[in-house]
Amino acid sequence: MRIARFSAGGSDPRYGVVEGPEGEEEILVVTGDPLYSPLNPTGQRVPLADARLLAPVIPRSKVLGIGRNYAEHAAELGNEVPEEPLVFTVPNTSVSGPGDPVTVPDWAGGELHYEGELALVIGRICKDVPESRVDDVIYGWTIADDVTARALQGPDKQWWRAKGADGFTPLGPWIETELDYADVRITTRLDGEVVQDGRTSQMVRSIPSLVAHVTRAMTLLPGDVILTGTPAGVGPARPGQRVDVEIEGIGVLSNPFVAAER
Amino acid sequence: MRIARFSAGGSDPRYGVVEGPEGEEEILVVTGDPLYSPLNPTGQRVPLADARLLAPVIPRSKVLGIGRNYAEHAAELGNEVPEEPLVFTVPNTSVSGPGDPVTVPDWAGGELHYEGELALVIGRICKDVPESRVDDVIYGWTIADDVTARALQGPDKQWWRAKGADGFTPLGPWIETELDYADVRITTRLDGEVVQDGRTSQMVRSIPSLVAHVTRAMTLLPGDVILTGTPAGVGPARPGQRVDVEIEGIGVLSNPFVAAER
Repeated sequence: MRIARFSAGGSDPRYGVVEGPEGEEEILVVTGDPLYSPLNPTGQRVPLADARLLAPVIPRSKVLGIGRNYAEHAAELGNEVPEEPLVFTVPNTSVSGPGDPVTVPDWAGGELHYEGELALVIGRICKDVPESRVDDVIYGWTIADDVTARALQGPDKQWWRAKGADGFTPLGPWIETELDYADVRITTRLDGEVVQDGRTSQMVRSIPSLVAHVTRAMTLLPGDVILTGTPAGVGPARPGQRVDVEIEGIGVLSNPFVAAER
Repeated sequence: MRIARFSAGGSDPRYGVVEGPEGEEEILVVTGDPLYSPLNPTGQRVPLADARLLAPVIPRSKVLGIGRNYAEHAAELGNEVPEEPLVFTVPNTSVSGPGDPVTVPDWAGGELHYEGELALVIGRICKDVPESRVDDVIYGWTIADDVTARALQGPDKQWWRAKGADGFTPLGPWIETELDYADVRITTRLDGEVVQDGRTSQMVRSIPSLVAHVTRAMTLLPGDVILTGTPAGVGPARPGQRVDVEIEGIGVLSNPFVAAER
């Protein structure tokens, strides 16, 4: 099931279930946020084409990112695969939605890197989750572009802005609640040209092991998001370019890159 | 004015103004959260001694920490003062309150480091704040222990758990809305013995310059917290020990350190 957060005709954000054949989808509007309340349709239907899709979730707490979780990607940046997962924290203010422009800040050296990734959305408050129970705490799946100011990762040491600046975490287009996540294809296109083409089966560490690892240190809240790492092929996106990330079974997340206003 | 968040007799968290001479303080209970609504007293008064103080704020978004902002502290760990502020992100799930035990996790090597710090609480949504306007976006001041799993900072590279694990960011005992913050004394005691004794005037970078810097990259929301760095004298705290951080003009934040349950 696809759960979208959207605005139509300037309305406040609402939630709905996206159904129907490709090109003719409708949103079945529901009351409240399905993350926190049972699905309750209002009876209203909105054509997907008439809706503006928004980030499908704004975490109450955090986005956690995973670095170097595909061996070929670690190697392309001259890094080793770390002994323990490389985890970093991204604030909820970094989250944006499908179609939202990614602004290249004036401190970023003129370009940002795209990183297409499978993102999971937590459904339950949880801590110390054993690998065998991880599927129980996952609400669903969405697509992320883990936008990165590559030039700042080294000098800044901590990636607070290189990964966490406003708009650096586009999510969408919706949350797919059912996904056989162990082996799906992730494709990133820059202005239509394929630049990343990987499969989740290439992950160094499995999703259950990642969730078990992070919850040994911290509580996850409903709506928290984990970015599971990017396959090989990262590279710069500059103002005027467009990045599409497609994940089999979910859809396409597309964002234009723009220059900062002066 | 001192704004406390508290529970009395098992009640849900409420807010109030702490008044009266030392040892006889009362909390003047108010409706709602003063961060988001004007102060509106209910008429009820609760003796401070009968209240359990809670973290005075749970950020909606993030805590930002500043590393190496006192030259003597940078030197004691063998670090240079960085060219740009060393900023890191801590999730709101790390925040705890006065008196709350700090659990030393089994992955932390048996000890954590205390780091007494002045913390500022943001009062307004803001981005790109010029130094001259920083005072306008600050709601008030509290005390933080920026608890750190020192052994993990190097191996983990990113400080997601070394600084951000559950309970690693005690805040309190309340928010002081008026503080002449440029030169106040910060004292940390370990089991009663003074281990840190610095002044905010020793900061490498001023508070206005820090807020200006971080808001060039990200939006701050009301309730977001910035930890402004720790003076020299950091060291280990082990299960069974107690850390008190005292800041002139605010009060004392006191937390016991305990072992993880097996």
